[in-house]
Amino acid sequence: MAMATLDPEQSLFSAGSYFGTQPPPPTLDQDIASVRSFAHRQRDLGRKVVLVTSGGTTVPLELNVVRFLDNFSAGTRGATSAEYFLKAGYAVIFMHRQFSLQPFSRHYSHSTNPFLDFLEIEHNPDKSSNSSNIAVTPSKRDKLLEVLTTYKSVQQSGLLHTLTFVTVNDYLWLLRAVSQELSILGRSVLYYLAAAVSDFFLPRQKMSEHKIQSGKGSLLIEMDQVPKILKPLVDEWTPDGFIVSFKLETDPALLVPKAQAALERYGHHLVIGNNLHRRKYEVVFVSRDHQGSAASGVAITWLRISPAAVDARGRAKEIEEDIVAELAKRHQAWIDDLLQQSFE
Amino acid sequence: MAMATLDPEQSLFSAGSYFGTQPPPPTLDQDIASVRSFAHRQRDLGRKVVLVTSGGTTVPLELNVVRFLDNFSAGTRGATSAEYFLKAGYAVIFMHRQFSLQPFSRHYSHSTNPFLDFLEIEHNPDKSSNSSNIAVTPSKRDKLLEVLTTYKSVQQSGLLHTLTFVTVNDYLWLLRAVSQELSILGRSVLYYLAAAVSDFFLPRQKMSEHKIQSGKGSLLIEMDQVPKILKPLVDEWTPDGFIVSFKLETDPALLVPKAQAALERYGHHLVIGNNLHRRKYEVVFVSRDHQGSAASGVAITWLRISPAAVDARGRAKEIEEDIVAELAKRHQAWIDDLLQQSFE
Repeated sequence: MAMATLDPEQSLFSAGSYFGTQPPPPTLDQDIASVRSFAHRQRDLGRKVVLVTSGGTTVPLELNVVRFLDNFSAGTRGATSAEYFLKAGYAVIFMHRQFSLQPFSRHYSHSTNPFLDFLEIEHNPDKSSNSSNIAVTPSKRDKLLEVLTTYKSVQQSGLLHTLTFVTVNDYLWLLRAVSQELSILGRSVLYYLAAAVSDFFLPRQKMSEHKIQSGKGSLLIEMDQVPKILKPLVDEWTPDGFIVSFKLETDPALLVPKAQAALERYGHHLVIGNNLHRRKYEVVFVSRDHQGSAASGVAITWLRISPAAVDARGRAKEIEEDIVAELAKRHQAWIDDLLQQSFE
Repeated sequence: MAMATLDPEQSLFSAGSYFGTQPPPPTLDQDIASVRSFAHRQRDLGRKVVLVTSGGTTVPLELNVVRFLDNFSAGTRGATSAEYFLKAGYAVIFMHRQFSLQPFSRHYSHSTNPFLDFLEIEHNPDKSSNSSNIAVTPSKRDKLLEVLTTYKSVQQSGLLHTLTFVTVNDYLWLLRAVSQELSILGRSVLYYLAAAVSDFFLPRQKMSEHKIQSGKGSLLIEMDQVPKILKPLVDEWTPDGFIVSFKLETDPALLVPKAQAALERYGHHLVIGNNLHRRKYEVVFVSRDHQGSAASGVAITWLRISPAAVDARGRAKEIEEDIVAELAKRHQAWIDDLLQQSFE
């Protein structure tokens, strides 16, 4: 047997026993303070806020960590969506895995579009070589100017706040703290939980202190289940927030049933399902059907773009544009729904 | 038990049985062709070549990979050293983990020194807003000009060839193929094996096809040992190359003994030992002592810099500058040694 999931025994952590036994990350207090002041500022301005989580989480196998389990995620979905949320008028907390893609700089990945390749050196013949100029390659200028202009204006406006995590433990502590801080905003907060969070972890008490030594045969790792954090998020930490989770699968047959099961188990608002290989062109929104037209009480909406689709500027269209537009609409309906209730 | 290494049984792979059972990466033939032409060009030019491997390797747990085991490595050692090897006159094959740091662009990490932060928009009052210029922040100009100038000249000279891997399987196939191609250069090739290669892997035959489902309790993973690849590298694939391997430990007491054991087991030229927490300021060179002055027959040389050290331009000194200078000297001695033998 190479891999197996074992029966749950004493190894099942609840959210309570998790936070009671696993230590918080050292920067937590500082992150909480920064989010608190961001949340108050946005409340005073009457602005809607989205928490975007992005990238994978690691599960270190050693206290002095050399090896870790990781989840595949470059952070494209989160970084791209954050830009469209800003465009839609949201204030954004971008909570991402260290070194995963970030809004704006994502357009210039060192691997696929390195920025050094579109800078040119212009030698000034009149002066010493020391006065050479650095210029942007003309063909790259328009796009860079657009990205740069938006980036600078977002920075000045203070509408983007970035938080960083590495391990699944960092992520869990941070999500709890941030959602508690954001709860003061009531229904104005949207949770867009796009990070690829590990389902398993190694409790600190079971970690090896130093690098596991090889040379003694095969390696056996037994991991515990990460507590299902959506439950307390919905029920306790931020009961009024509009909560969107993601489900990534590789087996197409499992996608909708798994998304539906998550929705039923946690009672939140929406699950966005995506298949690993088609995630750039197709997602499925699974939500409760308030109209009651579907027998199952579940509404399933597919959102698709053609791989050849272009946006208004003639550039490759990104499906996140449509995802965010649809979410902004549904989030507003959720807010309006409360207003309507208060008039009734 | 959370983690254990099991007795070696039928799960021990030799290099032969490894390559006989694990499939090559799809881009291997194309990579071999590019390295072959690079190697011939450098041989014709009489240039020394270094193969720098850099970054961690992944061990996918699923065929449609969502989860994987990884080794901690941003690729700083490899990317930095590659620049100093170029400066020392070497042609460099930079074989790195996808998304790990690369020479030159490493100075502008999106996390710590994002390039968008040092570009400014200059509005031209005489013309339409469409004619705005992008300029480099004056305080960042000198360093960027220096990096950019070197980058452009290296690109033009064709002295840097980049290869990419992700999994430990990609790495093993690529290392074997590249070393076989470089063997035509005899003693002129230096192998600088700085990648953090997993000691364990999951044979393809044991992988789950789809994402491992959670919700059924804890997860048990059993991994096989990666075959010790240095042995055939030294004995068969590139018998004349000057081979430098790295040993990373977290327990200081293990560093020199483990480096020494590796040197004895594989019979190559040098092990550079480094401790995870002091690797930017201290490394140890462990080699056979040809002078025979040490009773053990092993020469141990510590190389240290002060964290406050600066280089000739007043910037923070990098220990890779000294590592590469020392290696270039030892490599030249290894080449001269052969010339001397042929005159005797």
